[in-house]
Amino acid sequence: MGHGTNRVEDMSSPNNGTAATATATAGGETIVEIHSVCLPPKKTAFQKLKKRVADVFFPDDPLQRFRNQTWRNRVILGLQSLFPIFTWGSHYDLKLFRSDVVSGLTIASLAIPQGISYAKLANLPPIVGLYSSFVPPLIYAVLGSSKHLAVGPVSIASLVMGSMLSESVSPTQDPILYLQLAFTSTFFAGLFQASLGLLRLGFLIDFLSKATLVGFTAGAAVIVSLQQLKGLLGIVHFTGKMQFIPVMSSVFNHRSEVSQHHLIEVNYNKSKQPRFFSYNNVTILQWSWETIVMGMCFLSILLTTRHISMRKPKLFWISAAAPLASVIISTLVVFLIRSKTHAISYIGHLPKGLNPPSSNMLYFSGAHLALAIKTGIITGILSLTEGIAVGRTFASLKNYQVNGNKEMMAIGFMNMAGSCTSCYVTTGSFSRSAVNYNAGAKTAVSNIVMASAVLVTLLFLMPLFYYTPNVILAVIILTAVIGLIDYQAAYKLWKVDKFDFFTCMCSFFGVLLVSVPLGLAIAVGVSVIKILLHVTRPNTSEFGNIPGTQIYQSLGRYREASRIPGFLILAVESPIYFANSTYLQERILRWTREEETRIKEFNATTLKCIILDMTAVSAIDTSGLEAVFELRRRLEKQSLQLVLVNPVGTVMEKLHKSKIIESLGLSGLYLTVGEAVADLSSTWKANGQP
Amino acid sequence: MGHGTNRVEDMSSPNNGTAATATATAGGETIVEIHSVCLPPKKTAFQKLKKRVADVFFPDDPLQRFRNQTWRNRVILGLQSLFPIFTWGSHYDLKLFRSDVVSGLTIASLAIPQGISYAKLANLPPIVGLYSSFVPPLIYAVLGSSKHLAVGPVSIASLVMGSMLSESVSPTQDPILYLQLAFTSTFFAGLFQASLGLLRLGFLIDFLSKATLVGFTAGAAVIVSLQQLKGLLGIVHFTGKMQFIPVMSSVFNHRSEVSQHHLIEVNYNKSKQPRFFSYNNVTILQWSWETIVMGMCFLSILLTTRHISMRKPKLFWISAAAPLASVIISTLVVFLIRSKTHAISYIGHLPKGLNPPSSNMLYFSGAHLALAIKTGIITGILSLTEGIAVGRTFASLKNYQVNGNKEMMAIGFMNMAGSCTSCYVTTGSFSRSAVNYNAGAKTAVSNIVMASAVLVTLLFLMPLFYYTPNVILAVIILTAVIGLIDYQAAYKLWKVDKFDFFTCMCSFFGVLLVSVPLGLAIAVGVSVIKILLHVTRPNTSEFGNIPGTQIYQSLGRYREASRIPGFLILAVESPIYFANSTYLQERILRWTREEETRIKEFNATTLKCIILDMTAVSAIDTSGLEAVFELRRRLEKQSLQLVLVNPVGTVMEKLHKSKIIESLGLSGLYLTVGEAVADLSSTWKANGQP
Repeated sequence: MGHGTNRVEDMSSPNNGTAATATATAGGETIVEIHSVCLPPKKTAFQKLKKRVADVFFPDDPLQRFRNQTWRNRVILGLQSLFPIFTWGSHYDLKLFRSDVVSGLTIASLAIPQGISYAKLANLPPIVGLYSSFVPPLIYAVLGSSKHLAVGPVSIASLVMGSMLSESVSPTQDPILYLQLAFTSTFFAGLFQASLGLLRLGFLIDFLSKATLVGFTAGAAVIVSLQQLKGLLGIVHFTGKMQFIPVMSSVFNHRSEVSQHHLIEVNYNKSKQPRFFSYNNVTILQWSWETIVMGMCFLSILLTTRHISMRKPKLFWISAAAPLASVIISTLVVFLIRSKTHAISYIGHLPKGLNPPSSNMLYFSGAHLALAIKTGIITGILSLTEGIAVGRTFASLKNYQVNGNKEMMAIGFMNMAGSCTSCYVTTGSFSRSAVNYNAGAKTAVSNIVMASAVLVTLLFLMPLFYYTPNVILAVIILTAVIGLIDYQAAYKLWKVDKFDFFTCMCSFFGVLLVSVPLGLAIAVGVSVIKILLHVTRPNTSEFGNIPGTQIYQSLGRYREASRIPGFLILAVESPIYFANSTYLQERILRWTREEETRIKEFNATTLKCIILDMTAVSAIDTSGLEAVFELRRRLEKQSLQLVLVNPVGTVMEKLHKSKIIESLGLSGLYLTVGEAVADLSSTWKANGQP
Repeated sequence: MGHGTNRVEDMSSPNNGTAATATATAGGETIVEIHSVCLPPKKTAFQKLKKRVADVFFPDDPLQRFRNQTWRNRVILGLQSLFPIFTWGSHYDLKLFRSDVVSGLTIASLAIPQGISYAKLANLPPIVGLYSSFVPPLIYAVLGSSKHLAVGPVSIASLVMGSMLSESVSPTQDPILYLQLAFTSTFFAGLFQASLGLLRLGFLIDFLSKATLVGFTAGAAVIVSLQQLKGLLGIVHFTGKMQFIPVMSSVFNHRSEVSQHHLIEVNYNKSKQPRFFSYNNVTILQWSWETIVMGMCFLSILLTTRHISMRKPKLFWISAAAPLASVIISTLVVFLIRSKTHAISYIGHLPKGLNPPSSNMLYFSGAHLALAIKTGIITGILSLTEGIAVGRTFASLKNYQVNGNKEMMAIGFMNMAGSCTSCYVTTGSFSRSAVNYNAGAKTAVSNIVMASAVLVTLLFLMPLFYYTPNVILAVIILTAVIGLIDYQAAYKLWKVDKFDFFTCMCSFFGVLLVSVPLGLAIAVGVSVIKILLHVTRPNTSEFGNIPGTQIYQSLGRYREASRIPGFLILAVESPIYFANSTYLQERILRWTREEETRIKEFNATTLKCIILDMTAVSAIDTSGLEAVFELRRRLEKQSLQLVLVNPVGTVMEKLHKSKIIESLGLSGLYLTVGEAVADLSSTWKANGQP
């Protein structure tokens, strides 16, 4: 009956994992072939730790390509892996260059107006946006491994930096300190990004799930859009806060201080005592109709061009060229009507010249250092997530690899260098990268071309932006962020996975109503709780045999699967951990009770054996082992046998080490449910049991 | 070839889950029986939510016994489930009572000295310890469902309360406020425990894993033992802190203030300027040799009796009676030598009489409320964990059920009532429950007997404790907590699961060196990170066929398992979540690359198909679905087919909803690896491929 064979592989010959076969002949009747369950090859604790560390930190096996190479080749490969430019630089030719010039100029026409706009979103001087479109792309071209990433400031990171810093420091009252903090945050963002890459902790950004990001981006886009109402409606005094409620009250309730002051004066003179409540009734809004008209015109133009390009990707250049064209036209208009009206506010003087060094502005001590570090880490994570996601998207379209950890180092060094050359946080922008890809970019040279165009602008063209109206910058931002509200993705989440949709909503409303970092934290917390909940309350299901086969499947799903009299076959669909060991033990006992009630009702064969299919139990800890042991003890008191089927390698090893296998007895462990049923049935028959 | 059959069950007949069988006949050669993969029965989102909520909050199906009952029976069952005393009270007889009296008196002889000692551990007046051994056991006898739990103050909760409260409020300088905070904390502990039970959140205490508790208890026991050095060595001035370092420095460096002052005076007079460093050289320790001698004598007696009882459980009464006997003897000794020496400090006057009401001392506002709530929650969790664990242990020995959530409510109400009657936090004590069990307790009446003995003590015997020396209380605590250091359990953790051992050490050193709440938080954090790490970096393994069978098993474990030419069979051992979707995708592509390198090396058959065994993939989310989709797209670019095998119910449903199954094509989904291999091979043969 197979009991004579030692069914657990002997530990003394650990690598000789042959599945010893025992043929069970019970009373000369049935012949059942029984396979033993192997222990995995023996490893020391150190080997296991090494494998585990390699799995966690080096899943891509980065040193593999260096094996079996000469030293010279290794140096070349090392240089190539540090500076990807060496990989493609050697066979770069004129044809590739032609494509890159076209795409580089196209993204430059987007990057210049967007740079100026996004800097304003971060409450920084517009010129900083252009500086940030010059140095970082050059550095990325040398270090980065994506061929299509268009590097520069992006809306989300700009928004978050602006909102977090201006909560503590006013960009208008304390502009120098604000600028210092912005550069310092950028430095810490870079440092954090580079360290994540160096320490190979890149997997941490995986915890920002797709669902979290969809909600977060949409929430941030709504806030940015609302903020643009300031520029779009020509309001002068506006809240510095980022939440929905203060912004909306800014739009509808704020008047200029002058008029407020005036009202108080008037009331005071009338009644000889100030009536502060009186100006609650006043509804004079401080909107400028000229600005609104201009804004609406250009907004409809930009949205139309965006719509056209989305419909026909070949016409990408329409939406790519539209922002620069709008800037030029609107600047001309304002220039022409400058003597007639002053209602439309414009940028004004911008300094000419290249990035000034800013390393002396980094701020490593003092009261605001904690704020700078916090802002740096959050903008760092967000810009990294965007950069990596965009890089991976286009790499997958063209079927090449973007290495996450290396990309993090590239983005990190780019930001650290940027913080010393008057740049703020930059990363790969989704919209510009898409344009870059569609315009036929072939290598990172398109970033160099773009940087050169920005260089020319910085050196010679800055005075041309004097009359550029602020409203056009608001319109450019609006058009860019409206595309970030991905309601279709949210709808798909709702359809496929309600819990993911819930995470998405948490992150959306958290960002909109609470704050950017807290909203993100809530969404990550909810996603982690989902994982923990799945582990805490795992699924168990009863299996039955599909007649005529050796297949055992869930009775709930497969109608023709049928119970085997005398057996209760349960599958546990989760690792058995401290968090679920008590639950699983109780749940299995409940299955047993329910099965016995059913048996009484239908007068079926008495239950004799519980088979636990452990195929999906991918890990077990000491609490889990204790639960299995306790379960066996309690079932034994009810004269029921417990049998384990197909524990995976690590589980098998721990069962062995904790002596549970010995306590289960020889017939307590099988490789498949079918073999367990066959062997146990034949044993019972041989013993004359029904 | 089975392609003609619709292999995914039609959604329109969701409950008709018959595994449609298709017989594949490829070129008249092979006959392969193919089973289709079923979708689980269709359920609305609400039904799913309901099932999920029931799984999480009502895993024990508490209303099951009320079904199919008359209203009268339901009322009786309801009363019985609220007050378990009604369940066993009706058939209680003299024989049971006799057992309960014996065990009740035995635990009373332990409870009285321990009550006084533990109250001192919590920096409370000794009498509060006796009060706490009177009211709570009576309440538990009515509400509790364990038959063997001996209720009263316990060492860990007393220690934690003492350490947390005395960090902010001095028990000697502000005794009334301290007492108020102790009762308030007890109230919040009870409230928290009862709410956990009422809201059925009992599973939260499962997050304190066995490993965490072993480390925590040992750390707390070390601290308590060190604290007892004060009593044992007769030191007068001692630190109020609980960490290792301040306690050790208290033992070896502190002298009485008088001598310090004296030394400074001396130095000052000598040199005319204070030399503060000078008294670092002085080693006059403030130990009292009489106390040390007495302590050592009784310590060795108590440890010996404990050792005897552990060796022979029948002699449990020796260790049970020893503490009371020691108290009596030592009190007599001190009484007799009271005129000769005052070196041995004793308890002094204790008030006579029953528990005074203390509801007027509860403190629901003011500066220390947050501290009281925090202390309440932490002592609440700890005492709950101990109570439930002890209850379950003895219930499992006698094979009856202790309902976690109901037990939480019982302990919670007991503490809330206690806080109004001058009691501090109580729960089921492990040592006293073990004695209770060994002394033959049959029902909770033993608690009533114990409470009556405490009542008699409170009313008549209090003056007898006047000369009880403090050193004997220290010895009793020491003996009790030394048993809590379970080094064997720690060694077993080390042997079976290194990570659990690490958790255990985190909790041990966290409690010892940092603080009780932080140490616990660190250990829980580490345990949760372990779960997340397992999900973030799941195991994947390559499977092969065991010749002559339809069994596919890990190539690493089963030596005779062999690869099937043209196939790469991979098993994923984890749910596919946002946290691991990128990793899994990359890891599977790496498996493919490595397999292709191997094939090149050995000139084997070209790889044509990747089979993903999804049996252990117990869940999938939208990021996971996207990863599968993307994986399929990338494999297709390399002309490789992706086939999924045996996805479980929920995974199958989501694959269906997200249209991935359609995109996989008809031959992209199989029930077993064997069927997939057979069907695909025959298809290739029919198409004339090698």
